[in-house]
Amino acid sequence: MSTAHKQIILGAFIPSAGIMGAGWRHPSAAADSFRDFEHFRWVAQTLEAARFHAVFFNDTVNVDTDLDVLAHGPNSVRWDPLVLLPALALSTQRIGLIATASTTYNEPYNLARKFANIDHLSGGRVGWNLVTSLGGGENFNRDAHVLHADRYDRAEEFYDVVTGLWDSWDDDAFIQDKASGRFLDTDKLHVLNHHGTHFQVRGPLNAARPVQGYPVIAQAGSSDAGRALATRAGELIFTAQHTVEQGQAFYAEIKQRAAALGRDPEHLKVLPGVSPIVGRTLEEAQARYDQQQALLDPPSFLRSISRFTSLGFDLSELPFDAVVPLPPEQFDTNTHKSRQKLVFDLIRRERPTVRQLFNKLTAGGHRILIGTPESIADDFQAWFEAGAADGFNVMFSGLHQGIGDFAEQVVPELQRRGLFRREYQGRTLRENLGLPFIANRRAGGRS
Amino acid sequence: MSTAHKQIILGAFIPSAGIMGAGWRHPSAAADSFRDFEHFRWVAQTLEAARFHAVFFNDTVNVDTDLDVLAHGPNSVRWDPLVLLPALALSTQRIGLIATASTTYNEPYNLARKFANIDHLSGGRVGWNLVTSLGGGENFNRDAHVLHADRYDRAEEFYDVVTGLWDSWDDDAFIQDKASGRFLDTDKLHVLNHHGTHFQVRGPLNAARPVQGYPVIAQAGSSDAGRALATRAGELIFTAQHTVEQGQAFYAEIKQRAAALGRDPEHLKVLPGVSPIVGRTLEEAQARYDQQQALLDPPSFLRSISRFTSLGFDLSELPFDAVVPLPPEQFDTNTHKSRQKLVFDLIRRERPTVRQLFNKLTAGGHRILIGTPESIADDFQAWFEAGAADGFNVMFSGLHQGIGDFAEQVVPELQRRGLFRREYQGRTLRENLGLPFIANRRAGGRS
Repeated sequence: MSTAHKQIILGAFIPSAGIMGAGWRHPSAAADSFRDFEHFRWVAQTLEAARFHAVFFNDTVNVDTDLDVLAHGPNSVRWDPLVLLPALALSTQRIGLIATASTTYNEPYNLARKFANIDHLSGGRVGWNLVTSLGGGENFNRDAHVLHADRYDRAEEFYDVVTGLWDSWDDDAFIQDKASGRFLDTDKLHVLNHHGTHFQVRGPLNAARPVQGYPVIAQAGSSDAGRALATRAGELIFTAQHTVEQGQAFYAEIKQRAAALGRDPEHLKVLPGVSPIVGRTLEEAQARYDQQQALLDPPSFLRSISRFTSLGFDLSELPFDAVVPLPPEQFDTNTHKSRQKLVFDLIRRERPTVRQLFNKLTAGGHRILIGTPESIADDFQAWFEAGAADGFNVMFSGLHQGIGDFAEQVVPELQRRGLFRREYQGRTLRENLGLPFIANRRAGGRS
Repeated sequence: MSTAHKQIILGAFIPSAGIMGAGWRHPSAAADSFRDFEHFRWVAQTLEAARFHAVFFNDTVNVDTDLDVLAHGPNSVRWDPLVLLPALALSTQRIGLIATASTTYNEPYNLARKFANIDHLSGGRVGWNLVTSLGGGENFNRDAHVLHADRYDRAEEFYDVVTGLWDSWDDDAFIQDKASGRFLDTDKLHVLNHHGTHFQVRGPLNAARPVQGYPVIAQAGSSDAGRALATRAGELIFTAQHTVEQGQAFYAEIKQRAAALGRDPEHLKVLPGVSPIVGRTLEEAQARYDQQQALLDPPSFLRSISRFTSLGFDLSELPFDAVVPLPPEQFDTNTHKSRQKLVFDLIRRERPTVRQLFNKLTAGGHRILIGTPESIADDFQAWFEAGAADGFNVMFSGLHQGIGDFAEQVVPELQRRGLFRREYQGRTLRENLGLPFIANRRAGGRS
């Protein structure tokens, strides 16, 4: 595929809680989306009609301990993406379905099997967003959350075990010859026999090889360890970048590191997150944004951000128009290192007031883009043509209005410019992303 | 509900591999059912139309190491029931959906969450068949399968953790008051703080309380430890019994043990497994059975049974018409203790030839019932009225013919006799089974 014909990839971030932040308070918000599947069916079908490449669901495996945050936010309860995916596989035909799943709090055999199964169920439309989790140790036999370095060490090995298990059978192992009674060809079986630091897994997997060879691997870690894993294993790279220049630098680094590992840089797609607020006029867009912001409970949100980033002071105790003090020079945290860096950099670069910082961070730290279909398309085009993005992970709050407006107004504008396809070109998620089928590394006789 | 109005409960055992034993060789067998969901959709919809209470899927988390068994049987690869259930929840409206899931090779937080989610997805139609697994340690960081006593000790605690997590939130905790901004009432939150021998789990679960309070708990262990768990936690008790007298004794024991624990014996439903072969005449039924048996590879099957039950000699090396020697008096095994006892008792009681034993065991050790719709209904009625069963777990091989014939011929005969309902009476699986909603044990203020 020549660069001239490249088009933008659009992924949709959908909160697995149904809705993000204060969105649940919006008059149009679907109630009970944390336990009512109809919301997700509507979202996936709407985005499929708009030809999005994939919907992507985040996940956590614990609940905030701050009662005030719990009382006001919808994030205490959320769907397990591995329950949503099989249901969405039956509700859609072409859109990709990407589930976040933790390498820290799962067993590789169980995850390898579920993703293989769902890849068959969906006809090859599944992706795995591999995360090490932001917390959860307290629910999994541990006194505290597993340390960052250990999590990534385990994640690297976890990935090797899972992909090794996906190679347990050749694609054509199951001959099912009724006449002779031979169900499968045991010469096409490959026993993993993995003996590593974290895992001892014999195999084979009790599931046929996935339709796509391997499900598409997404990775969002932007710390050093996260980038190392992303460049080795990732195919969709989710990231938070606030300026074109930052985007270009990240994009170039990821592609160069992948090339240095012998990978084709075209086989990693970099998708910065962006949170669009669409209006037919800029004024309408701004009014919608203001309406959403007004629903937030600033003290609760600011306290949560202060704690989340280990800022060292509580933003909620400062006057709303005070300039945010500089964060500590030396810092380290066990969770979400890259998001901490993003917030600290933003404070240093822009020296915002508490109000300005608040307004920048309400999309989970991702860039907020308030505009008309034309101005949003301009922005996407600029990032894409500047080599700062292969596409975008569009961060939706979960409000039907926001999803519907983007699908009905921004997508047609991108299509008009030739920047976005009008039809699905392939059958599987890999085909639609321009990623290759992954051949079995063990094929060529029993092993 | 008075005894006079009691009716038979019908559960359907469906192999998660799609088809059992040699059934895949039958001319009518659906190919690829191990990776083609359409088979399962058809099965669930057909059984729902026949008003079955539930479909139930077995599971294992490893693959046989005997290459000859692998080559001939369809059991190497099978669907994860927790992937099938969300898809079936969307494919059906009323039938119960019961997944087998292992307490030995899962984390309680992950399982509690998936079952809670699927209960919401299905509108309260989910059940959990709690098993300790027959094998799999080699895929889960262990040198060998976990020992029987340890498995059951862990299973007891696992059940306590899972049910404790289901009680994390009161049923009405999520007030979602848009005006005040209060999403939930933190006084209706209950933190588990479990510190036990096998598990340390803080909670709360990040999922709303299941629609049914708790999903319905099924249990099939018939060993001493299995019966102890079944009588404490089980609501559907699956069992293999070959004679009415054996069935009566087991039924009475289960109900008495439950009563001794303070449980209402009506809240445990005993469902012996039975494998029906239906024909419009007895000759047609017998011919169908003979056709199915002819598809089997007896040496491979007999070798597998010998190994599975730790018989001490290889049945496949004996002449087909030789009387089976007596099994050892002293025996112990780490897997499937009750099935071993059943086979040994059968050999002692009936002194069968190898051929006769083979023919008795091809339905996984369950009773094989060859007959017309009338004779099968007679048998069900006799067991039910003799107090040997509250209903039956009908062991289907997965062949559409067998399922269709039972649904179209046997079910109407049971309905004609007033032994089986003509419509679903409730909305949830509990309601349809006559089991009570489970109230939150922690309700009454934050804890």
